[in-house]
Amino acid sequence: MAFKITASFLEKLIGLINENKDSEIKKLFSEIHYADVAEVLEEVSFDEAIYIIKLLDSEKTSEILTELDDDIREIILENLSAKEIAEEVEEMDSDDAADIIGELSEERQERVISALEDDELVADIKELLSYEENSAGALMAKELVKVYETWTVAGCLRRIRAQAKEVTRVHSIYVVDREEKLIGRLSLKDLIVAKNEQKISEIYIDKVDVVNVNEEEEEVAKIMAKYDLEAIPVVDNRNVLLGRITIDDIVDVLKEEADKDYQLAAGLTQDVDSDDSILELTRARLPWLFLGLIGGIGAFLIMEGFEDAFKGGAFVLFFFTPLIAAMAGNVGVQSSAIIVQGLANDDVKGSINSRLLKEMLLAALNGVILALFLFVFVWITKGDIQTALAISVSLVVVIIVAGLIGTFVPLFLNKRGIDPAIATGPFITTSNDIFGILIYFMIAKFILGI
Amino acid sequence: MAFKITASFLEKLIGLINENKDSEIKKLFSEIHYADVAEVLEEVSFDEAIYIIKLLDSEKTSEILTELDDDIREIILENLSAKEIAEEVEEMDSDDAADIIGELSEERQERVISALEDDELVADIKELLSYEENSAGALMAKELVKVYETWTVAGCLRRIRAQAKEVTRVHSIYVVDREEKLIGRLSLKDLIVAKNEQKISEIYIDKVDVVNVNEEEEEVAKIMAKYDLEAIPVVDNRNVLLGRITIDDIVDVLKEEADKDYQLAAGLTQDVDSDDSILELTRARLPWLFLGLIGGIGAFLIMEGFEDAFKGGAFVLFFFTPLIAAMAGNVGVQSSAIIVQGLANDDVKGSINSRLLKEMLLAALNGVILALFLFVFVWITKGDIQTALAISVSLVVVIIVAGLIGTFVPLFLNKRGIDPAIATGPFITTSNDIFGILIYFMIAKFILGI
Repeated sequence: MAFKITASFLEKLIGLINENKDSEIKKLFSEIHYADVAEVLEEVSFDEAIYIIKLLDSEKTSEILTELDDDIREIILENLSAKEIAEEVEEMDSDDAADIIGELSEERQERVISALEDDELVADIKELLSYEENSAGALMAKELVKVYETWTVAGCLRRIRAQAKEVTRVHSIYVVDREEKLIGRLSLKDLIVAKNEQKISEIYIDKVDVVNVNEEEEEVAKIMAKYDLEAIPVVDNRNVLLGRITIDDIVDVLKEEADKDYQLAAGLTQDVDSDDSILELTRARLPWLFLGLIGGIGAFLIMEGFEDAFKGGAFVLFFFTPLIAAMAGNVGVQSSAIIVQGLANDDVKGSINSRLLKEMLLAALNGVILALFLFVFVWITKGDIQTALAISVSLVVVIIVAGLIGTFVPLFLNKRGIDPAIATGPFITTSNDIFGILIYFMIAKFILGI
Repeated sequence: MAFKITASFLEKLIGLINENKDSEIKKLFSEIHYADVAEVLEEVSFDEAIYIIKLLDSEKTSEILTELDDDIREIILENLSAKEIAEEVEEMDSDDAADIIGELSEERQERVISALEDDELVADIKELLSYEENSAGALMAKELVKVYETWTVAGCLRRIRAQAKEVTRVHSIYVVDREEKLIGRLSLKDLIVAKNEQKISEIYIDKVDVVNVNEEEEEVAKIMAKYDLEAIPVVDNRNVLLGRITIDDIVDVLKEEADKDYQLAAGLTQDVDSDDSILELTRARLPWLFLGLIGGIGAFLIMEGFEDAFKGGAFVLFFFTPLIAAMAGNVGVQSSAIIVQGLANDDVKGSINSRLLKEMLLAALNGVILALFLFVFVWITKGDIQTALAISVSLVVVIIVAGLIGTFVPLFLNKRGIDPAIATGPFITTSNDIFGILIYFMIAKFILGI
């Protein structure tokens, strides 16, 4: 089943495009899944991609467009007329349609919407565009199968046949009362197993998980993952059924969320991938590197401040600053990552104080083990027990402080409503570098009595 | 809908347990979703958790057990007899049943299996346990709805009513030939829309995505996410239908995968969370910290090696080693993270050489911008243009080398079939610290002509 893009496939395709062999190109793509076609379009030139999109049927291209990388889709949409975009959009589910139209400039949005022929779709799209970004409302689709509690099973099956044509997958049948308020659900299975003359009100399940239309998409993802749901109905504050969210959209939300946290931890500010231009990658990387540079300058200033104190006998102390900085950074990243991940999974319970106490004990344990090793190393190589002691004791303190900072900062940010993931990576390593080196010299100075 | 564990709820629950008010405890839990009950069990003591599990009906506890954290489930299972575990397992889908039994010691596995009364389940569990860990076979469930191509729609609906009782959710109906080979699929919707007397062979869809039973679960997750599938049938090498994998299991695979990559990037060796014991957390953290310590000692040895050269006039060079190390580490983590994420998303195309060239240009651009800033800073504060030049030029070279290492190592590991995610985090920062500082002193020595 797996389709792989090969060099020979691309060569053949580009050859066919150059010779305008339209019917052969159509035939070539007829057997290929739209998700694979989207990948092909990411491999050819923009002109070739636009050529292919204009050539294929809108039934297929509408699916391809929803799968495409944002950057490429933007360029393709720029090269389609409002009418052509409207044709694509009419083939889409309302959620995908609203997403695509939402990417256009306001002026083009209006032109595309007025080119749409399906009034119901226009109303749906306008409604979906009105919800806040990253809310359940912006994520949901309007297409769903809905029955009234007063219907019979037979009547239901008849009407569902009509409704179901518009809905790609029927997960649940939602049961509403006369005021369109959600009161329960049914599965197709339940309906098939029931007797024809039964009323829906007799057989529906009145327990149904719902989300409010203003709920954040991350929260929806958590709920759906936790309760193993494949679709969830979306209601307004009065419990009126507005739409539904399906698990495939949630898979995308979870992946984006994971990618974002990973990138923040690695010191990348925006959503980039390895195929982006050097300029885009620089924009994502340079700010964090600059932060690191400022941290390094801070470390330099601290060391310069201690120059006179240690230039004489305890010169060797300067040679351990990369070690101290590295340990402070590593411990900080470890402890912040555990907290960030715990917060993301709603796993962090108890007070901040108990967390800090635990991290202190943990860091102390790790610190003492590592410091013992370092003590023996310095003592043997330098033969100076006092220097060895100064370096080792400060290492323990630095590790404890780094662990506390790494634990406290994400918890603090989370309390303030700021995404704690920004606390990992360069932010924590840079601040821990500076604190670590400062603490190190202060303690060493004290122990050596300089 | 959202159930929140409150202190007063826990207090009430523990009070009821202490007074052995079993019926009230049952009532308390009757309205709570099993995923929430699992969270409650993670908050109470082991004895209390075991008490609750033994009290509730196995229909509910079987679901709770599958949702529980591994650590707690292990302890609960240890406190249940083989017969009690068998009762739980009989309520589960085959995939969950096999997972739970797979966690037991071999001797207990046999005892539980021989206590099972359902022969079909025994056969299913034995089959599922025989597949390699993290393969499609180990992930799939045996429960599915299967019809033969020779059946009629009416006959199908009748038989599906029987089969469907065992299957929690009917995603697709799989169509097989006489040899049990998968030849296509149908949705319940298609079946409802079809006429009663039609043959399945006339209406089934012969395009069906499948995975081989030996496929890796990560690959299955990629396929299902890419093609927006909610269930995928699993076949053997002869295309015989063996089972199916549903999207909720894939959501778990994706989350685990993301968590693992994130933890590796943060320097944590095994799957830990913030509630684990200090000992477990130390086991996850100490090895990477030790690696960092070794790196720091390496940096110390390099600096000592250059002590005589720079102790005189260019003493200030030592004060910039934390800066150099931090920049080398940050650049390495950034470039390796982009590659690791690209590999995970199958986004990295083209040759290693073209990647390295791009990274070199990118690192050079970033490096020159940062080095210019540093040059001006050192020149102004130290008033020595030669030192400023030495430090800045080496910074550019260090950044380029760090970027190349960060790009090359994950690509190389991936080619060798090793998970590239281990290349991020402490591994890359430590090696880049050492290389960075070495390059820095060598270039500075050359420029200053010492």
